[in-house]
Amino acid sequence: MKKYAFKNDYSEGCHPNILEALIKTNLDQQNGYGYDDHSEEARELIKKKLNDQNADIYFVSGGTQANLLVISSILRPHESVISAETGHIFTNEAGAIEATGHKVHGVITDDGKLKPEHIQSFLDAHTNKPHQLKQKLVYISNSTEIGTIYQKQELKELYEFCQSNDLYLFMDGARIGQALTSEVNDLTLEDVANFTDVFYLGGTKNGALLGEAIVITNDKLKEDFGFHIKQKGAMLAKGRLLGIQFLELMKHDLYFDLAKISNVQAMKIKSAFQMKGFQFLSETFTNQIFPILSNSQIEKLSENFDFYVWKKMDEENSAIRLITSWATSDEVVEDFIKEIKAL
Amino acid sequence: MKKYAFKNDYSEGCHPNILEALIKTNLDQQNGYGYDDHSEEARELIKKKLNDQNADIYFVSGGTQANLLVISSILRPHESVISAETGHIFTNEAGAIEATGHKVHGVITDDGKLKPEHIQSFLDAHTNKPHQLKQKLVYISNSTEIGTIYQKQELKELYEFCQSNDLYLFMDGARIGQALTSEVNDLTLEDVANFTDVFYLGGTKNGALLGEAIVITNDKLKEDFGFHIKQKGAMLAKGRLLGIQFLELMKHDLYFDLAKISNVQAMKIKSAFQMKGFQFLSETFTNQIFPILSNSQIEKLSENFDFYVWKKMDEENSAIRLITSWATSDEVVEDFIKEIKAL
Amino acid sequence: MKKYAFKNDYSEGCHPNILEALIKTNLDQQNGYGYDDHSEEARELIKKKLNDQNADIYFVSGGTQANLLVISSILRPHESVISAETGHIFTNEAGAIEATGHKVHGVITDDGKLKPEHIQSFLDAHTNKPHQLKQKLVYISNSTEIGTIYQKQELKELYEFCQSNDLYLFMDGARIGQALTSEVNDLTLEDVANFTDVFYLGGTKNGALLGEAIVITNDKLKEDFGFHIKQKGAMLAKGRLLGIQFLELMKHDLYFDLAKISNVQAMKIKSAFQMKGFQFLSETFTNQIFPILSNSQIEKLSENFDFYVWKKMDEENSAIRLITSWATSDEVVEDFIKEIKAL
Amino acid sequence: MKKYAFKNDYSEGCHPNILEALIKTNLDQQNGYGYDDHSEEARELIKKKLNDQNADIYFVSGGTQANLLVISSILRPHESVISAETGHIFTNEAGAIEATGHKVHGVITDDGKLKPEHIQSFLDAHTNKPHQLKQKLVYISNSTEIGTIYQKQELKELYEFCQSNDLYLFMDGARIGQALTSEVNDLTLEDVANFTDVFYLGGTKNGALLGEAIVITNDKLKEDFGFHIKQKGAMLAKGRLLGIQFLELMKHDLYFDLAKISNVQAMKIKSAFQMKGFQFLSETFTNQIFPILSNSQIEKLSENFDFYVWKKMDEENSAIRLITSWATSDEVVEDFIKEIKAL
Repeated sequence: MKKYAFKNDYSEGCHPNILEALIKTNLDQQNGYGYDDHSEEARELIKKKLNDQNADIYFVSGGTQANLLVISSILRPHESVISAETGHIFTNEAGAIEATGHKVHGVITDDGKLKPEHIQSFLDAHTNKPHQLKQKLVYISNSTEIGTIYQKQELKELYEFCQSNDLYLFMDGARIGQALTSEVNDLTLEDVANFTDVFYLGGTKNGALLGEAIVITNDKLKEDFGFHIKQKGAMLAKGRLLGIQFLELMKHDLYFDLAKISNVQAMKIKSAFQMKGFQFLSETFTNQIFPILSNSQIEKLSENFDFYVWKKMDEENSAIRLITSWATSDEVVEDFIKEIKAL
Repeated sequence: MKKYAFKNDYSEGCHPNILEALIKTNLDQQNGYGYDDHSEEARELIKKKLNDQNADIYFVSGGTQANLLVISSILRPHESVISAETGHIFTNEAGAIEATGHKVHGVITDDGKLKPEHIQSFLDAHTNKPHQLKQKLVYISNSTEIGTIYQKQELKELYEFCQSNDLYLFMDGARIGQALTSEVNDLTLEDVANFTDVFYLGGTKNGALLGEAIVITNDKLKEDFGFHIKQKGAMLAKGRLLGIQFLELMKHDLYFDLAKISNVQAMKIKSAFQMKGFQFLSETFTNQIFPILSNSQIEKLSENFDFYVWKKMDEENSAIRLITSWATSDEVVEDFIKEIKAL
Repeated sequence: MKKYAFKNDYSEGCHPNILEALIKTNLDQQNGYGYDDHSEEARELIKKKLNDQNADIYFVSGGTQANLLVISSILRPHESVISAETGHIFTNEAGAIEATGHKVHGVITDDGKLKPEHIQSFLDAHTNKPHQLKQKLVYISNSTEIGTIYQKQELKELYEFCQSNDLYLFMDGARIGQALTSEVNDLTLEDVANFTDVFYLGGTKNGALLGEAIVITNDKLKEDFGFHIKQKGAMLAKGRLLGIQFLELMKHDLYFDLAKISNVQAMKIKSAFQMKGFQFLSETFTNQIFPILSNSQIEKLSENFDFYVWKKMDEENSAIRLITSWATSDEVVEDFIKEIKAL
Repeated sequence: MKKYAFKNDYSEGCHPNILEALIKTNLDQQNGYGYDDHSEEARELIKKKLNDQNADIYFVSGGTQANLLVISSILRPHESVISAETGHIFTNEAGAIEATGHKVHGVITDDGKLKPEHIQSFLDAHTNKPHQLKQKLVYISNSTEIGTIYQKQELKELYEFCQSNDLYLFMDGARIGQALTSEVNDLTLEDVANFTDVFYLGGTKNGALLGEAIVITNDKLKEDFGFHIKQKGAMLAKGRLLGIQFLELMKHDLYFDLAKISNVQAMKIKSAFQMKGFQFLSETFTNQIFPILSNSQIEKLSENFDFYVWKKMDEENSAIRLITSWATSDEVVEDFIKEIKAL
């Protein structure tokens, strides 16, 4: 029997409602390429939740695809994007952005979040134009790759800084559900729409089989986006597959319910570690936690559960990464907490 | 009520077996990125059918994606690809190949098929190196974009010509199922593996929700293909979605059964037009037919059925395109034939 | 002793005035990257001749470089350029444009010149957006690669057509000097500036060691051009080398005098062939001519002169290409004409 | 009257021998595109000095162009290059490498030089393939952008490390003349050829009007390089201009004599600063020095001389950059030293 894995939030299939909807609609004929009724309905629903009837919404398959589509559609050849060094586009997408011709500048941060002062000092060091590139876009993730989230005031300030400096702000929302349902979050989806130029709602890591919903709110970035989707091989003939999923996820806010479950399960585990006095690599309130354990404790926990050893702290201790998902059951969490208590 | 559409072969969802398999496996935890058990099993099954244990097999989402991945992974910056002008990569993929830096040379053909003499005369006209590009790859589709197919001898000769001229041969198999089950076909899947360097089995147009299985048989083209999939945004976190589908399609040859159905339904309709004395734009034996009708006949047929008017022949007549799929029912075909007879 | 070559118009060094100016200014210290006094002065002189004080002017090394810089700076990833199939960018630049990510559509023409009807019928065949690319730029050459030139009315109509169709018009002026000084020309440099969005004045084929002067007249295309020059490796540290040359060429209209010489020498040779009753591949009035000779006549002329055999007409006859330059002397022309008369 | 500038080593024209050779050869007809006699002769001379008859040698216009040509010709789409953060390709070439599709990884160093331990720790942090890129090339500069040079043992160790790790080693030699003639250098040109896979000899910063000589010694990197030169717009029609210059520079080792002059002049100035007790930003023995001065001293020196203020050290002091060239006269140096002494 396989060990239960806390390795990532895309280990299971999808929420059952999605499978039901696929069955129910299966033999209906629909237009291809995102012009189906389901995609149309899902777009309307999302626009309503954003409170922005003018937003342009496109469904694509995954996060790297969404990132490269958005970034390459915005930038002219001599323009570049700024990211935290922990940002997914900086080292974890096999050069996807550079493959479209653009440099990703990496900025070192404490907590995976970009702040105006990071950008300002970067801009100050890159004034020798045209020998140095023109920075045009700021890329952030929420929640970040290390589980932290942006507060409303932080996002607002960053957005205003970008506006004052002729920069666009793009939020990678592969785990935006987890961010917006975190117990310490004060952002709404409408805030995100207001304080970014473009962002996406991740489905893959929150109950869909696949799919991210790209939301473009800045009019300047809307023109001809469909061509880019086709050109980069991201346009599904059966776009219905994406539309049906986002329709199910958005209906009755299932999307946020699922994200919340993943957060709650992680927080229960975090709490168990805290009660035993463990330290953490970073303080997180979403579905990723990074407790620091001794080698023997890691070995012990590995007997019945699977997870990544994330960072070696010293010869005796390492941080591990535990990720929960919408499908992580109470039972599994309880079993795991028992083992934590026994450490 | 919507009219029944013969507009394309991706208007419906997927074969019910696939939905069943998705349900059955839904909550199993699986590795991401194509390393799941289902993908592994599907790859083994395909290799067995190819009779080539050394083939490398990758599942991706769609045809344009498969085309750009294969072509950009093979070519160095100064190398180009030759295609028929009707080839999908030449005008119907929004410049996907050029976006990866490579020219697609278009060759005019009668029937959508490339022959050695086409390539030879092209090479003869491009000898001014390095001012003219180095041609390195030949792209063909089977069945072609206009419904025709390659005979075994034709494919063999083309492959041998390519080998003699230091060219790779790549077959776009978005509709390879329809080609290999056509009543006039004499190619086997094993032949295709033997007489190409790389090809793919299209799922999207033959019963899957999405997915194409890229098969690399030439060892020289195998190195590091996975990086390209990641870089181009084509690597699904839940690769299981593709693996499960190809496993279902390949089991008990469902793939070929479905393709055959689509061919048979088209041939019934073709036969009905022939019996009424209609001409065709091209002679096809797969799931696409192009009968030439008068404007009033087109108007009449459009009352209850939907299809594309493909090419204006003169002021009074046009060719229409009719495509059938694995999901086209006998009942629909019979209804349509009645209308043909009544023209 | 080497045979005299009519192979191209870049076989010699440069006009002696340029060498003198290089010597005279050699040890002056100047700013790099095109900010030197000479470049500044040359730009002013060109703007005066264009009668356009707002034009942006940049000096780069060669024609392929100018073409790829202009085109890649204008187009977004999903936009393409239309060229005659004889256009230099279509087959003679080793895929330079495609390497920047853009498709070059080739249009078959009689005389190397694009007309509104060519573009219109091309646009009509590419309406399936976003599956087909968005055409955004029309590329023409004057004189063309086969020696023909645009008349004022033709250029004006093409420009107006482009404006009505949201297309930019770009003129490759590698041999614009020869075009504007042809005996049948009715265009002025000011007309060219008025009836294009961007063009360049070729130096390499008209008396310079190297260098083309890119002239951008449409404000929309001016932003940030310098970055592209740097990024594509086209920014010379010693930009003075280009500035000095264009200053010399533009002073007292040396540029046009040199072009005229090359035309006149070609026309003398053309006339000699005509008087002997020879036919030509195309009717040209610039410095390229394409007389059709028998194999034995070609062999005879090759004894003392070097040139390219351009196109085989039949088993017995071929067209040859003869190119003259600013450095082609009267003496050489007379010697050659003697041999023509003796054929 | 303009102030004398120590701003860079490309402020003047070229060594007079080059101008003489241009005059002498001006009206000879030569083949285009680097197939002229002068280029051929220059290549032979360089190969002799390298003691490598199999090296492939190409002349191009400038350093950024050489860098992008070499790097993009070597790397497949998923491969990347490692550079020091001070490396010219990392921030000073307007994203030239990324524009060809490849990521440049930046490594922080003390002295601008890469050592095996830098690369090793970088590789250790990038093992999550294919999500992280495949590093394939190491880029170094000699002398570096901050004036330091590689010792023979350092280069040898780096090369051997690269070989053991399936990495190519590329040396940017924009100032290789200065490196090899530095008073502390122990490398020969032959060593450079032996301990790199490809490098170039910079002409622009050492007495030429323009031009860098790319030397490819590793057979695997030689195939089809000419296509890349054409495709990237780097192939001069009048390649003679580059051939003539390198022939003059290489004859009687003028190249090394000129580089030595620039070093000697810088060392005289350095010595004058040292005798007055000034500190330096980095210890250099080539033609760049970085003395640290007080604001008032900088102001004083600026009255008669021009130079860049390179780095602010604190409120009161900054490092300035002084660059000498082959054309920096003894007289100018003496005048400047007088001013230093008077500080």
